[in-house]
Amino acid sequence: MGANSPDSLTPAIAADHPGVGELFAALAYGEISAFYRLAEDAQMSPTLQGKVALASMAAAEMSHFETLQSALTARGHDVYSAMKPFVAALDDYHASTHPSTWLESLVKAYVGDGIAADFYLEIADSLDPSVAAVVREVLAETGHSEFVVHEVSAAVRSSTQEKDRLMLWGRRLLGEAITQAQYVMAQRQDLTELVITASGDLSGIAAMFDRMQERHAERMTVLGLV
Amino acid sequence: MGANSPDSLTPAIAADHPGVGELFAALAYGEISAFYRLAEDAQMSPTLQGKVALASMAAAEMSHFETLQSALTARGHDVYSAMKPFVAALDDYHASTHPSTWLESLVKAYVGDGIAADFYLEIADSLDPSVAAVVREVLAETGHSEFVVHEVSAAVRSSTQEKDRLMLWGRRLLGEAITQAQYVMAQRQDLTELVITASGDLSGIAAMFDRMQERHAERMTVLGLV
Repeated sequence: MGANSPDSLTPAIAADHPGVGELFAALAYGEISAFYRLAEDAQMSPTLQGKVALASMAAAEMSHFETLQSALTARGHDVYSAMKPFVAALDDYHASTHPSTWLESLVKAYVGDGIAADFYLEIADSLDPSVAAVVREVLAETGHSEFVVHEVSAAVRSSTQEKDRLMLWGRRLLGEAITQAQYVMAQRQDLTELVITASGDLSGIAAMFDRMQERHAERMTVLGLV
Repeated sequence: MGANSPDSLTPAIAADHPGVGELFAALAYGEISAFYRLAEDAQMSPTLQGKVALASMAAAEMSHFETLQSALTARGHDVYSAMKPFVAALDDYHASTHPSTWLESLVKAYVGDGIAADFYLEIADSLDPSVAAVVREVLAETGHSEFVVHEVSAAVRSSTQEKDRLMLWGRRLLGEAITQAQYVMAQRQDLTELVITASGDLSGIAAMFDRMQERHAERMTVLGLV
């Protein structure tokens, strides 16, 4: 929870805060890049079931993209121009965390999406309800993670070596995600101001990253990576 | 229209015809393979708009897949076992029509989907209404073709060379699609029997392929490939 708890009367960040468009745009490009990463990673799937599971996850990202596109259009933004500032950071994140095995791609889909969702949901608590509703809608669980949890936890139960590898992989995903998030914020003033307001102050941001790290550890536990 | 026109009282093919499960399964794997073909081809897009357009088309395929999965489950079939017999033919079709340019991939998305839709919709007229409804739902226009028509017709207006290349490409797509359709039918007795019943007899099948060829020519005209 941010500086502004959900039961406050007035959210800290008004619906017309200039960072809101940037927030939606960052989320929108996140959906597009996640779509293509999932579609590409699915080629490593040893089974048709795995291919279908990743394709379903990818399709859910596109439905979220459409929600964000409508929200941006309603605010007078062109989604393509708005997304441009976030292309490099998100492409860099995916390039620096390119999975080399099917299990790595499953862990990335689950853990990477989880880290992003934590970050945006922390901020949502301080947003005007109309804005927070869009953020929560596009970050809602799509019910496709069961497949990932089942596949990964079964694999790591039967191989300590695989488990050690994937634990390191999870740590790397967290590190790269935080690096890229900080890089984005350093470049976009309105968005940075929004995140600082949502967190209260700079020490609030540090506390937020601590909470994200805890939730990351919880997700790793769910996958059997502990 | 098949041997059995829509205003007949009893459709030629009952809901429990053993070919219906095969028909749904062929359609289901068609959606999965179209999803991955679109996602892969989108990498050639010179713009973010093109990437988003193909991702949206791909996502629509997955929503159709889910409809078919439910229909197969309701009939007691496991979607993955049911799809297996169609994997090779559809993978071969995509391998033999691998686009080498962005425009080729757009023409393939539009023309290839159109040929498949014509084939299944011809058959739908003879199916029990409960079965026909599923077929028509998954073949409904998803509204994403405008982008393709706009991009391709603009490109061929400004280059005769591109136009000639793409006209040959369209002809090749039709040829490969018919080859693979015949290959599938030769292997699956129940489905073949269903298609022959829908067409009336073997000369009905020939007439059906003639109509498909006419509609293919109409689509090429829409793209400016005439």
